[in-house]
Amino acid sequence: MDTFARHLLVELHGCNRALLNDRESMAHLLRRAALAAGARPVAEVFHPYAPQGVTGVLIIEESHLSVHTWPEYGYAALDFYTCGDCEPERAAREMAAALGADRVELVLVHRGVRDSTSSIHVADVER
Amino acid sequence: MDTFARHLLVELHGCNRALLNDRESMAHLLRRAALAAGARPVAEVFHPYAPQGVTGVLIIEESHLSVHTWPEYGYAALDFYTCGDCEPERAAREMAAALGADRVELVLVHRGVRDSTSSIHVADVER
Repeated sequence: MDTFARHLLVELHGCNRALLNDRESMAHLLRRAALAAGARPVAEVFHPYAPQGVTGVLIIEESHLSVHTWPEYGYAALDFYTCGDCEPERAAREMAAALGADRVELVLVHRGVRDSTSSIHVADVER
Repeated sequence: MDTFARHLLVELHGCNRALLNDRESMAHLLRRAALAAGARPVAEVFHPYAPQGVTGVLIIEESHLSVHTWPEYGYAALDFYTCGDCEPERAAREMAAALGADRVELVLVHRGVRDSTSSIHVADVER
């Protein structure tokens, strides 16, 4: 399939709640996940919420990774949007392991599909 | 449906190529799109690519918006991830109009679905 980008949507359940609520830890883990995938970070922004939760985004040469956390539910949503040769699934596995997730769901979406009348394909689901 | 967040995936085709390649314009348009949706921006990061293209992310109180552009194809991918009361479709319409898109696709994904064994639902497609 000829596409501009692959976009991996990741659902992480049963995560370590203290990590999910710590901005520095989440920044460290997101950078590490990016490197595990073979991506090259170029900029980042992280924001803590009151009373809890963190949002973080890493811009990479290959597009971006983002994470949103709900410590009160042990839940995090990870997105990895890439137009490059990196391996988003590796970032998902790295993050899941680091956070101690007990349930992981992955959905791969193809974005900017060029050989079709529809530009967006939900391609693969692992549950 | 009881979910943590709604995630709107937007494909914009036939856009103004000069705008897609201008970091300041894209930053301005993304902020405007966020406000049109009723979101509250709190931080941002934008990155231009060589030889062309821009990535930008706006962190909002309700989560994030991101945009990736391919000026050479007149294409942009917009994402609006929200756990709040804002209206992501308004941001998509605002951005599509500002960029002069001649084809728009929207896919709404529910993230962190709590009343189901599956946490992620691709709910609605407009093409």
